[in-house]
Amino acid sequence: MSQLTTDPGAFLQWLKESIPLAAAMQIEALQFDGQQLEMRAPLAANVNDKGTGFGGSIAALATLAGWSLTTLYLRRQGLDCEVVIAESQQRYLTPVRGDFVARVALPEAGVLAHFQARMEARGRGALSLQPVVLCDHEQAFTMQGHYVARRR
Amino acid sequence: MSQLTTDPGAFLQWLKESIPLAAAMQIEALQFDGQQLEMRAPLAANVNDKGTGFGGSIAALATLAGWSLTTLYLRRQGLDCEVVIAESQQRYLTPVRGDFVARVALPEAGVLAHFQARMEARGRGALSLQPVVLCDHEQAFTMQGHYVARRR
Repeated sequence: MSQLTTDPGAFLQWLKESIPLAAAMQIEALQFDGQQLEMRAPLAANVNDKGTGFGGSIAALATLAGWSLTTLYLRRQGLDCEVVIAESQQRYLTPVRGDFVARVALPEAGVLAHFQARMEARGRGALSLQPVVLCDHEQAFTMQGHYVARRR
Repeated sequence: MSQLTTDPGAFLQWLKESIPLAAAMQIEALQFDGQQLEMRAPLAANVNDKGTGFGGSIAALATLAGWSLTTLYLRRQGLDCEVVIAESQQRYLTPVRGDFVARVALPEAGVLAHFQARMEARGRGALSLQPVVLCDHEQAFTMQGHYVARRR
């Protein structure tokens, strides 16, 4: 099943087929090296009335990046899980004036080991991630996202 | 200029023409009685891979509701302002299984008077709002949004 792929390109394709807003945002170029994930969105499809990045798009890209990282990490561990975001704190630092990139990394090994142990023991676990959104290599948005996973 | 309208229908029309994602979300039925604002979005355009409401859409609708309330309130006071969201705390309570509504109300009179006095004296001010998203009259999402306004 394509929705269980761990290939970044196929995963992004599935995301855009499953989530109409991800298609509308024209998300492109998902990259994942096993530790850090990036996804990019063009300004034109995500612009606001002021000609800068729409806050809803910026936050949605960051939220999706964390969600994708959690989902892909678990799949690589052989765990097919339902992942949802439960809580989020967000800060908009500066207007986005071009295409933008959401970047998020897995936490340190100890936190990750604890998460994985809970997933295997209880079939449930939670992961706090800090996606950021960059434009022209400058941080424009930071987020703390609390993601909850449950084995299917 | 249509972007300075205080008519809810014309304002929503302008929003969807200016923000492609608001059009993609198919936001409809903006209501504003001078105190409380509601905007509605259909599930179909805002669905996720699980068939429930996409978190990015839910948060974006709530963010836009607070932004629209701040903007329309200021216009009614004769103030043409640039409004942006600076910070947001969000909690997802339960999956959204149908069309959903974002609702947000102005704060109490004392807070509002303070905001308006600052806008008039300094041309800048900030407003904290608590948009919620409802589905079938049940709260599915709560948010605390910190909006900053500046006179043009």
